[in-house]
Amino acid sequence: MFDFALVLAQEALNVGKMGVGIGMGLVILGAGLGIGRIGSAAVDAIARQPEASGTISTQMLISAALIEGATVIALILMLILG
Amino acid sequence: MFDFALVLAQEALNVGKMGVGIGMGLVILGAGLGIGRIGSAAVDAIARQPEASGTISTQMLISAALIEGATVIALILMLILG
Amino acid sequence: MFDFALVLAQEALNVGKMGVGIGMGLVILGAGLGIGRIGSAAVDAIARQPEASGTISTQMLISAALIEGATVIALILMLILG
Repeated sequence: MFDFALVLAQEALNVGKMGVGIGMGLVILGAGLGIGRIGSAAVDAIARQPEASGTISTQMLISAALIEGATVIALILMLILG
Repeated sequence: MFDFALVLAQEALNVGKMGVGIGMGLVILGAGLGIGRIGSAAVDAIARQPEASGTISTQMLISAALIEGATVIALILMLILG
Repeated sequence: MFDFALVLAQEALNVGKMGVGIGMGLVILGAGLGIGRIGSAAVDAIARQPEASGTISTQMLISAALIEGATVIALILMLILG
């Protein structure tokens, strides 16, 4: 009975790991879609107004860095959690 | 019987951890889509009206920071929960 | 009974590994969609404004590198997790 109990505990631990693994995947899915959209809009905008490229680059980098920061925080918290 | 109960409790804990992991992924998925949409609209707007870039940047940053703040709060609360 | 327990433990270990595997797949799905969108927008933009190709290339590279960095971090953390 004790062995069986130990085994169930082990199973439980790994179900949690499964959720953290899928969650990390969703994190990068969100970051990729978000930064991808900003980057594509930025190069589009530069093509339309090449003289405003400095301002556009700065704004692109600010919003992309906001997503990047939250992404790295989430990945580290997940590693602590898992 | 005591061992079996202990194991069930352990299993319950880790099923909860699975939910927290997937939830953290969904948090960043939402934040990425939201900030990505704001950032892409902002660089589009600057390309159309380069002389209004100061106002556009400020408004972009305010709305993106609102999403960022809620995201970080959710991640920290999830870490406490898990 | 002991053998049965051992078998369940082995199965449990692989449930966690399953989640990490699916998560790695989602990571590359997100990175592929994101960098793919940036790259396609960049070549479109260069086709419309060939004289701005230097600026467009730089911005494309910055945003693609942000996604790439988060992707590599996530993959390494998942390898540690799994």
